Amino acid sequence: MKNLYFNNAFSKQPLPEVIERMIPFLGEQYENPLTESDQADRVRMEILQARESVAALLHARPEEIYFVSSGTEANNWALKGAAYAHQKTKNHLVVSAIEHFSVYQTAQFLERQGFEVTYVPVTREGFVDPDAVARAIRPSTVFVSVQGASDEIGVIQNLDGIASLKRKFQDVLFHSDAIQYLCYEELPLQRIPLDLVSISSNALYGPSGIAALYIRTGTRIFPLLHGGMQEEGLRPGFQSTALIAGFGHAARINQERKGVWKQRLASLQEKCFEVMDFWHVPVTGSRSCRLVDNIHVLADVDGEALLTLLLGEGIQASSGSTCYQYAQKESHVLKAMGMNPEQVRGSLLFTLSKDHDQESNQALLDSFGKVLAHLRKVKC
Amino acid sequence: MKNLYFNNAFSKQPLPEVIERMIPFLGEQYENPLTESDQADRVRMEILQARESVAALLHARPEEIYFVSSGTEANNWALKGAAYAHQKTKNHLVVSAIEHFSVYQTAQFLERQGFEVTYVPVTREGFVDPDAVARAIRPSTVFVSVQGASDEIGVIQNLDGIASLKRKFQDVLFHSDAIQYLCYEELPLQRIPLDLVSISSNALYGPSGIAALYIRTGTRIFPLLHGGMQEEGLRPGFQSTALIAGFGHAARINQERKGVWKQRLASLQEKCFEVMDFWHVPVTGSRSCRLVDNIHVLADVDGEALLTLLLGEGIQASSGSTCYQYAQKESHVLKAMGMNPEQVRGSLLFTLSKDHDQESNQALLDSFGKVLAHLRKVKC
Repeated sequence: MKNLYFNNAFSKQPLPEVIERMIPFLGEQYENPLTESDQADRVRMEILQARESVAALLHARPEEIYFVSSGTEANNWALKGAAYAHQKTKNHLVVSAIEHFSVYQTAQFLERQGFEVTYVPVTREGFVDPDAVARAIRPSTVFVSVQGASDEIGVIQNLDGIASLKRKFQDVLFHSDAIQYLCYEELPLQRIPLDLVSISSNALYGPSGIAALYIRTGTRIFPLLHGGMQEEGLRPGFQSTALIAGFGHAARINQERKGVWKQRLASLQEKCFEVMDFWHVPVTGSRSCRLVDNIHVLADVDGEALLTLLLGEGIQASSGSTCYQYAQKESHVLKAMGMNPEQVRGSLLFTLSKDHDQESNQALLDSFGKVLAHLRKVKC
Repeated sequence: MKNLYFNNAFSKQPLPEVIERMIPFLGEQYENPLTESDQADRVRMEILQARESVAALLHARPEEIYFVSSGTEANNWALKGAAYAHQKTKNHLVVSAIEHFSVYQTAQFLERQGFEVTYVPVTREGFVDPDAVARAIRPSTVFVSVQGASDEIGVIQNLDGIASLKRKFQDVLFHSDAIQYLCYEELPLQRIPLDLVSISSNALYGPSGIAALYIRTGTRIFPLLHGGMQEEGLRPGFQSTALIAGFGHAARINQERKGVWKQRLASLQEKCFEVMDFWHVPVTGSRSCRLVDNIHVLADVDGEALLTLLLGEGIQASSGSTCYQYAQKESHVLKAMGMNPEQVRGSLLFTLSKDHDQESNQALLDSFGKVLAHLRKVKC
């Protein structure tokens, strides 16, 4: 059967090996890791192995990885935890104008709490200029937060350039939401001086409901939750060992296979771009610095109508950002890139998966062409 | 094989039916509920059914149930969300002196944030007196938070009496951490006017890593997390459908079987109390108003030594509260009940499960007697 699911930025099907790894921890090995016994030892060992695997993916140390319940929680924790920890002496935050809602709305919340926020603009290509970030930094800046790659337009930021500002601005924390970025790109934190990094299991073909915040040793950050001693007391709550085990295994597999996945997807993406060019449908943002799974376009017809007709062909895609589907009236990301409401109305996002092949790609493009031609005809 | 796991307040083995219900949502049905498709419809339907089942257990409405990642998160949200939502006009909080760490430490955190907290004392039996709660309430009180039953000593509070204060103090919110309470006791919220209730899946023989906060319609509460539109935008983040499905099914089964479980455990507990009396080991707190799975005692020997020797016999038990095992230097609960450090040193907690029978119970009591006698002999 052809795989016609092109919403992989919203949710990815977990790997079969990952599911297999989780099963024993759903039932047999159910112990709370905070108890004392041989069985609990096995649970702790699995959690430690998962922590090591997630750390290895980032070239970080296991004790710098804190498990949380979602990428949204990781982003909330990074921003609020850092802001509150420095509140007494600093009150300024820098975020890019094209962050995921869990960063964007958290920044807006912190604004209402009395923090000042600078939203760094992006170029028409979707890039955050490191020099613009440098200019936004003040003596009162707590942190800079720039997404590794946009979940919406897929443009990859110059994290190296941004994080290297750390050398000049040592008192500023640098955070990146690397959730979408990390599935196909490398993030060697032994070299890139980010202090806080959000990563998510499902974005790596692991289970949903589990994620992590990387906190570089020595980083001052407050917890979001108070209670027990889990995660060194910084993130209390009895988590699912099964989800953590799955996340760890997904990280392991990602490290082995991401190169192969990336290569295959790059060629499918290239094919998609060719067809979009043929139909004179502009691709949004940079093509060269872009996640290999992302096809974001601005069609000259109604995006919602396109989606509905595509769904009739069995093709699942979306009109915009993850996690905001139903309420997506307008995209702050596209607006920040200078798009007008008319352009935004035609926005369409396909995200490929590692399981896609030429056949499913061709099915997508055939249906897209057919539906687009129909809507253009109707419009005339 | 005899079941010698007596740490069921820390973690319970999920029911086989619950695990079966979860499996399809680990792999095949992985869609993000915020997307649009037949597959996502099935995911949404399962989440809705789970919400209905959890609501039914509380005689509440599905739209009053918000899924979160742990009981700790539910308690944090209830307290912080309510406190912050009323911060401009009120600054006083009332909690009992024997709450779980996730309430107790959150209250202490809010104290550092400028709120005033009254910790309502308990009787030697472990009861929170509703009249004492009434006396603690001021015009500036935001909420009252009293645990339904202690995870440590198992004493069941007069929630009816406490919540009925709502009629007199209509502007005060009433919260209860009913996590341990709900597995064997009823909480009919159509009659008991609590505004906020924390419940947890694993405490009901569901998976860990998923829980819920009941928020009565009309209750003013701020979110802890900001971002997408999940849970009506009040609790954003892509959760695990598998965990939610398991939680829902555990709630369904709990409603059917809790009566039978309770009856069987009550007789095992009675037997344990008889043996404790025989050994002159005092049971902590009320025996009659007590969760049927809880055997908390204060032995006249070192509790840690007892635990270690019991572990040698294959018996897993604990010295105190859930989620704080490793750091448990002293128990604020036992202290609040007037116990001195010498008594606390001998504290020991066994929590039974629905799977225990007379044979495993007898094995526990035989080992306990043997080990206790040995330690008493060594002591002399």
